Amino acid sequence: PDGRRVPRFAAPDTFARLPTLDAVGAAAVAVVGVPFDAGVSYRPGARFGPQAVRAGSKLLRPYHPALGVEPWRVQQVADAGDLAVNPFDIAGAIEAVAAGAADLLGRAGHLVAIGGDHTIALPLLRATAARHGPVALVHFDAHLDTWDTYFDAPYTHGTPFRRAVEEGVLALEASAHVGIRGPLYAPRDLIEDHDLGFATVTTLEVAERGVADALARIKARVGGRPVYVSVDIDVLDPAHAPGTGTPEPGGLTSRELLALLRGLDGVHLVGADVVEVSPAYDHAELTALAAANVVYDLLGLFALQA
Amino acid sequence: PDGRRVPRFAAPDTFARLPTLDAVGAAAVAVVGVPFDAGVSYRPGARFGPQAVRAGSKLLRPYHPALGVEPWRVQQVADAGDLAVNPFDIAGAIEAVAAGAADLLGRAGHLVAIGGDHTIALPLLRATAARHGPVALVHFDAHLDTWDTYFDAPYTHGTPFRRAVEEGVLALEASAHVGIRGPLYAPRDLIEDHDLGFATVTTLEVAERGVADALARIKARVGGRPVYVSVDIDVLDPAHAPGTGTPEPGGLTSRELLALLRGLDGVHLVGADVVEVSPAYDHAELTALAAANVVYDLLGLFALQA
Amino acid sequence: PDGRRVPRFAAPDTFARLPTLDAVGAAAVAVVGVPFDAGVSYRPGARFGPQAVRAGSKLLRPYHPALGVEPWRVQQVADAGDLAVNPFDIAGAIEAVAAGAADLLGRAGHLVAIGGDHTIALPLLRATAARHGPVALVHFDAHLDTWDTYFDAPYTHGTPFRRAVEEGVLALEASAHVGIRGPLYAPRDLIEDHDLGFATVTTLEVAERGVADALARIKARVGGRPVYVSVDIDVLDPAHAPGTGTPEPGGLTSRELLALLRGLDGVHLVGADVVEVSPAYDHAELTALAAANVVYDLLGLFALQA
Amino acid sequence: PDGRRVPRFAAPDTFARLPTLDAVGAAAVAVVGVPFDAGVSYRPGARFGPQAVRAGSKLLRPYHPALGVEPWRVQQVADAGDLAVNPFDIAGAIEAVAAGAADLLGRAGHLVAIGGDHTIALPLLRATAARHGPVALVHFDAHLDTWDTYFDAPYTHGTPFRRAVEEGVLALEASAHVGIRGPLYAPRDLIEDHDLGFATVTTLEVAERGVADALARIKARVGGRPVYVSVDIDVLDPAHAPGTGTPEPGGLTSRELLALLRGLDGVHLVGADVVEVSPAYDHAELTALAAANVVYDLLGLFALQA
Amino acid sequence: PDGRRVPRFAAPDTFARLPTLDAVGAAAVAVVGVPFDAGVSYRPGARFGPQAVRAGSKLLRPYHPALGVEPWRVQQVADAGDLAVNPFDIAGAIEAVAAGAADLLGRAGHLVAIGGDHTIALPLLRATAARHGPVALVHFDAHLDTWDTYFDAPYTHGTPFRRAVEEGVLALEASAHVGIRGPLYAPRDLIEDHDLGFATVTTLEVAERGVADALARIKARVGGRPVYVSVDIDVLDPAHAPGTGTPEPGGLTSRELLALLRGLDGVHLVGADVVEVSPAYDHAELTALAAANVVYDLLGLFALQA
Amino acid sequence: PDGRRVPRFAAPDTFARLPTLDAVGAAAVAVVGVPFDAGVSYRPGARFGPQAVRAGSKLLRPYHPALGVEPWRVQQVADAGDLAVNPFDIAGAIEAVAAGAADLLGRAGHLVAIGGDHTIALPLLRATAARHGPVALVHFDAHLDTWDTYFDAPYTHGTPFRRAVEEGVLALEASAHVGIRGPLYAPRDLIEDHDLGFATVTTLEVAERGVADALARIKARVGGRPVYVSVDIDVLDPAHAPGTGTPEPGGLTSRELLALLRGLDGVHLVGADVVEVSPAYDHAELTALAAANVVYDLLGLFALQA
Repeated sequence: PDGRRVPRFAAPDTFARLPTLDAVGAAAVAVVGVPFDAGVSYRPGARFGPQAVRAGSKLLRPYHPALGVEPWRVQQVADAGDLAVNPFDIAGAIEAVAAGAADLLGRAGHLVAIGGDHTIALPLLRATAARHGPVALVHFDAHLDTWDTYFDAPYTHGTPFRRAVEEGVLALEASAHVGIRGPLYAPRDLIEDHDLGFATVTTLEVAERGVADALARIKARVGGRPVYVSVDIDVLDPAHAPGTGTPEPGGLTSRELLALLRGLDGVHLVGADVVEVSPAYDHAELTALAAANVVYDLLGLFALQA
Repeated sequence: PDGRRVPRFAAPDTFARLPTLDAVGAAAVAVVGVPFDAGVSYRPGARFGPQAVRAGSKLLRPYHPALGVEPWRVQQVADAGDLAVNPFDIAGAIEAVAAGAADLLGRAGHLVAIGGDHTIALPLLRATAARHGPVALVHFDAHLDTWDTYFDAPYTHGTPFRRAVEEGVLALEASAHVGIRGPLYAPRDLIEDHDLGFATVTTLEVAERGVADALARIKARVGGRPVYVSVDIDVLDPAHAPGTGTPEPGGLTSRELLALLRGLDGVHLVGADVVEVSPAYDHAELTALAAANVVYDLLGLFALQA
Repeated sequence: PDGRRVPRFAAPDTFARLPTLDAVGAAAVAVVGVPFDAGVSYRPGARFGPQAVRAGSKLLRPYHPALGVEPWRVQQVADAGDLAVNPFDIAGAIEAVAAGAADLLGRAGHLVAIGGDHTIALPLLRATAARHGPVALVHFDAHLDTWDTYFDAPYTHGTPFRRAVEEGVLALEASAHVGIRGPLYAPRDLIEDHDLGFATVTTLEVAERGVADALARIKARVGGRPVYVSVDIDVLDPAHAPGTGTPEPGGLTSRELLALLRGLDGVHLVGADVVEVSPAYDHAELTALAAANVVYDLLGLFALQA
Repeated sequence: PDGRRVPRFAAPDTFARLPTLDAVGAAAVAVVGVPFDAGVSYRPGARFGPQAVRAGSKLLRPYHPALGVEPWRVQQVADAGDLAVNPFDIAGAIEAVAAGAADLLGRAGHLVAIGGDHTIALPLLRATAARHGPVALVHFDAHLDTWDTYFDAPYTHGTPFRRAVEEGVLALEASAHVGIRGPLYAPRDLIEDHDLGFATVTTLEVAERGVADALARIKARVGGRPVYVSVDIDVLDPAHAPGTGTPEPGGLTSRELLALLRGLDGVHLVGADVVEVSPAYDHAELTALAAANVVYDLLGLFALQA
Repeated sequence: PDGRRVPRFAAPDTFARLPTLDAVGAAAVAVVGVPFDAGVSYRPGARFGPQAVRAGSKLLRPYHPALGVEPWRVQQVADAGDLAVNPFDIAGAIEAVAAGAADLLGRAGHLVAIGGDHTIALPLLRATAARHGPVALVHFDAHLDTWDTYFDAPYTHGTPFRRAVEEGVLALEASAHVGIRGPLYAPRDLIEDHDLGFATVTTLEVAERGVADALARIKARVGGRPVYVSVDIDVLDPAHAPGTGTPEPGGLTSRELLALLRGLDGVHLVGADVVEVSPAYDHAELTALAAANVVYDLLGLFALQA
Repeated sequence: PDGRRVPRFAAPDTFARLPTLDAVGAAAVAVVGVPFDAGVSYRPGARFGPQAVRAGSKLLRPYHPALGVEPWRVQQVADAGDLAVNPFDIAGAIEAVAAGAADLLGRAGHLVAIGGDHTIALPLLRATAARHGPVALVHFDAHLDTWDTYFDAPYTHGTPFRRAVEEGVLALEASAHVGIRGPLYAPRDLIEDHDLGFATVTTLEVAERGVADALARIKARVGGRPVYVSVDIDVLDPAHAPGTGTPEPGGLTSRELLALLRGLDGVHLVGADVVEVSPAYDHAELTALAAANVVYDLLGLFALQA
């Protein structure tokens, strides 16, 4: 509905008040919630992320001036609702997300998933790679998320990309972490991550060399490969994203993150997620608004490919 | 969806995750949001009330043990979404709500409206009286809401029942305010209200004589007439409902309010609203949860009439 | 200003938007802020109490129906602003409050002080007793506040009434604590308090025997003596007054406290304070609203004596 | 340390600033944290409960006037720290809690556990029953917690007492739920619970008949059997305990809950827990303070048995 | 009062504790509140803006080192209180603000208004242009605010500068928007705004080219014309100004905004406002402090012209 | 404990879950809390700072990649608990902190103190200078803190470095303020500070010339002298550190502050503090996390000197 005719604070409560996927049957891009947070190691609550990001999306308007595109005018975009995932069974939940995503990809060209915690990136990558082959991962995060296990658990929000490497769903020579910062468990964390094959653009490098330099490095790395963008909202500074589970001071501003995303115009985007929005720690929707704008930019990138 | 199969924190975001009225076509009772707050005299924000009460309704389960009924199993209940009301034109908004409610009553036997501020009770009463004739009003509120004008404005959240009297939509000999307390503008406020024909059960009377006594007085007054229940959430003490616009200390507990509502079993309920939930002042969904349970109890009362 | 002509959310920011004492020159009763909290033993912040209670007083209206009086119509009531007290020198602050109160009593018949922490009750009692002789203290509080010293400090928020006893400003045979509850340092706390001469009405007694019984006991004790009412807002349950420094679960409801205050109609009130509102811990003005209504009830009692 | 010598806001951060169990070697009663919340079905966060309840315990003082006892003077009480439980493996966590509790009972006569979610009651009951035989459960909660499974999961915060029944660790003829209220999944929820053998005292019964009546019923039921008290903090009204995961309006006041606990003086208490404090939803430590006072009352009951 | 003699947390509650305009009779510059928010399209609450900004101004001290001036020492500055505006009649409110501002300009050389929502800029511009002729507008905002109508309403917070153009109160060839960002309704929003005659400095341009470049562009545009500065606080990033109604991620930092304002030294400032502070969404006075410092910088600019 | 074995949200609650100084006997560096805030002029609450910063330190991990060091692996680091300081006697508290710090320096090579308000820097400097002679002060703060007196009080949070100069504990020719900004009392504030001998790097200079330039100036000034780093958390912008007592908009980002601290690698660090964390004004631990990372960086600098 037009925000100048039907108040933005009115229902429906879908993402950006878009139609449901059920209502339109099929879509070029579908936004889907994955309310799962049983994989978190510190502050939980990302299970309420999809609901919060949808609420935060109400202020979005149809025209994206920075990208020069009307994301849901140039192609059908829809809200696919939430995947029903078991909060008590991590392995089962991963299977359910993989199956749910695969199913949705039968009706939607691409998915933008809203977490939930970062555990969900693994099944989403599986479903994406099943269609596009191994993908170049552009991973915005304060953390590497390539640890092996926590408490002997192989599937957690700190391990999805280690598992993804093992499963062969990543084009490692084209993948990169962006925004890494903060304390680690041991020097070998960096070494192991590097040995897996990831490149890294740290927050400090973005700060010192600027967004354009970071973009150049990322784009050179991914080249023309199919790209999956995974945005852990904690890549933002806690001032910009208090509502998250493992905050790290000294992060990106929302201005930098949005500039980085918009700068990805031209890469071959095939899937994306934004994760780790934990509303109980948010204030005045700061984090939800940032995440909703991340989704909006991703929809803009998809629209430019249309 | 069953909360033991699909997590309650997952979509859909309709009231109690009920189907939409559009999806089911018609319903015995429809819940409808009226996100309008241009009539408030102090803290605004009730425009976000429907969204918040729906979010607070996610914990509701299908069986109401105090009333011994499964409200949406014994008859079809649906969520009719929100009425689109103009935030910049109070008179126009009142017309729109009256028209919208009348339209919905073509598809739904009864309405439970979620405000929005108390201004909306007037057009809802109009639509209800158009079908049932003048109704007995059972009005839970800290305030009388029978003032004449504020700032020369005839339609505000402090005046709906004065207008309703003038429009002849109330069965005054059967109507009552419940929960009145707090400072007034002048002694004549009470006199004028009494002269209009309302009875009053104050909070202090509930406190001193108990819920059963209050119920006996209310039921004796309304008799067998069609009853409209209007619940301003500020009838609750601010400790139980911080998220409202004109809070008054010394109010009812949520336990008392729910007992009063459940005690209305047996009256001939024909319409209802719960208003003045202002989420920006809420904490941990206290007020939204209370309001969602008010709606649930009203749905239970309707179910017992089915 | 009339709240139906000038919005209540508009300036001025005096208590209940009353005129300043400077503007009217003299008053029957003056409300005065004492923004001092250097005497607190746990959560500080009551220095912002006067500002918060004034903000919370904006919703007060001119007619008090429970007492049947228009507090500032039957006599002049004014806002005397805040006393300037040194935050770094407790003894000096006490002298300044005593001097400031004495000075104000040259222009105002009675004072209702808004704290600040409970330390300020001592100098206020001094100033009151200087005019009326030893006063019967009706002390609403979760705590006795008759400890001897903390950290060797004689003047703190836990000791004002021990000092007041020593200074001879209390009519001990007529004084009582109301609302006492919660853990103590040792059994002798109660014994010493009793030996000083105070009576005690515990919260549990109010709960079990009711407000009327408590009032009967209080009124029997104070008789016709001049009465000073001191309300530590923590006499309320934390649900009703989260914004305070040493909260104790299991307290009075705001409904009970207001009923107790209104029930003091008939005693010879000569001075009063409400203290320990710490806004940084408040939510949605719960505590400030409760305190503003306490002041309003005290002004109503003064008006009935006029 | 004495709160009049070492400020209460200073370290140590143990419960009530008691010594650690390691420091004293053995204790009559040990307080132990169980920071586990992977069993929750709605709002998570109880993993931070032990930290919050300890912080909320800083205001506790040594003498309990309502019980007339100095809980940690009459016998050694100590803080045993937190059990290390795996957040990613519910079954493993239950084993770890059972083993940890059994181990602690080698050094402590009794345990008072701070959750964590209600899942932990099962292993705590196991460890208690291993020492005392089947125990009479006095279960304060808004919910029955005797459901069979959620999402096919047998071990969740909604199922501990069903499992406890199956494991034979409860003296069912002596066990009762207290404070039950709110919507259920189906009428059979109550029937199944009754068939398992539990008695129930609802919140409404406490409200209508009073605390003394409820206590008489509870005490008659438990008789002289060893009693385990399990307090889900959501037995309190959300106004008194906003910081919890599945809040239900219309609950007990903290005054009622503390009176109920204190009234258990005379039963043969052998173990206890307080669970479901979720600090991210708390405000001004309302919930943490209530829970800390629950622990304090339980320690008082243990002290009276010493 | 001197903040080293009278605590800053003490009354009076005027802006920066300056004297009232009534007390001093006339002033070179008056600060005036306009507590009106009936023109907002999303989160309301700016009606409480003046009260919050005054509270946030308490930390301001007399010397502005960045501008090298003592704003209220070099000329008389006063607080004119709040204009009484009708919350239920937008058109009437606009007339009242225009009349009130004109009236104040009889006693004050210049006004700095504190909103309230952006609707109030229109009548303030009218009053300013009545004295100075069409003014160059320097408009700091995330949004253009030159839309034609919302819900058919011509006067809202999204339309003041369209109306101002139509009324001829702007020197369009000298006016500019600064800080524009975020999604729009359609590509024509930008085209229409450009066709009206405004220049635009986007947030991204400030980010990429720096504050000095932006200032050079603004100053070249305004030249020597009389300048009106209108600051919508949402020009700041939500991290710096959460307490506003239509937040947009990716905004200016408070450091950038203050540098931009201070850099306007040398332009011919004749009037100013700061609007859209909505305290219910603020935290720890972040937004109020920022707005108070905006006012302080504007007062500094006026002082340099004295 | 290893955060991959014992959850980070579990006890112990020492800084970064390090052992206590009592447990290890002696340490190269000890972290010590100083919960004192009787010296504050505006928002109090820093007495809860040590508890909050310890809670915020739970996410710290053992390896500091930016400094390439494992701070508590290369040498013993311990948590010395809190100093017990009298909240009612500023002069006595200063003596107690000086004595306590001197005592701890018998068991710890260096101290990193967590305040508490800035008053505590004076006795900490005394104790440090007693061991190392006059120290070069690198003082991160929005404010100079070299005022003479407030309310005639010589010892407050605005005066520690004036007193330190007078006591001869500073190497003035090597000392500097970093991050200064915001309004002052008078032009002479800057002159007097300069005349005392301090150099100043303002926030604006950091913004315009960058971190590297600021570091070069600081390092040139301190040379090889023993350095004491004092970090008032209000050097950060309120968006990054809302939880403080005298916030000033326009400050450093946490990214800048951490870069400045890490850039001090190579100076001869001998002592440090981080002060003015006031948790009641914090949100989602933003300020506590920033302060915990400041301590972590300081521990990293000490480790590089080991």
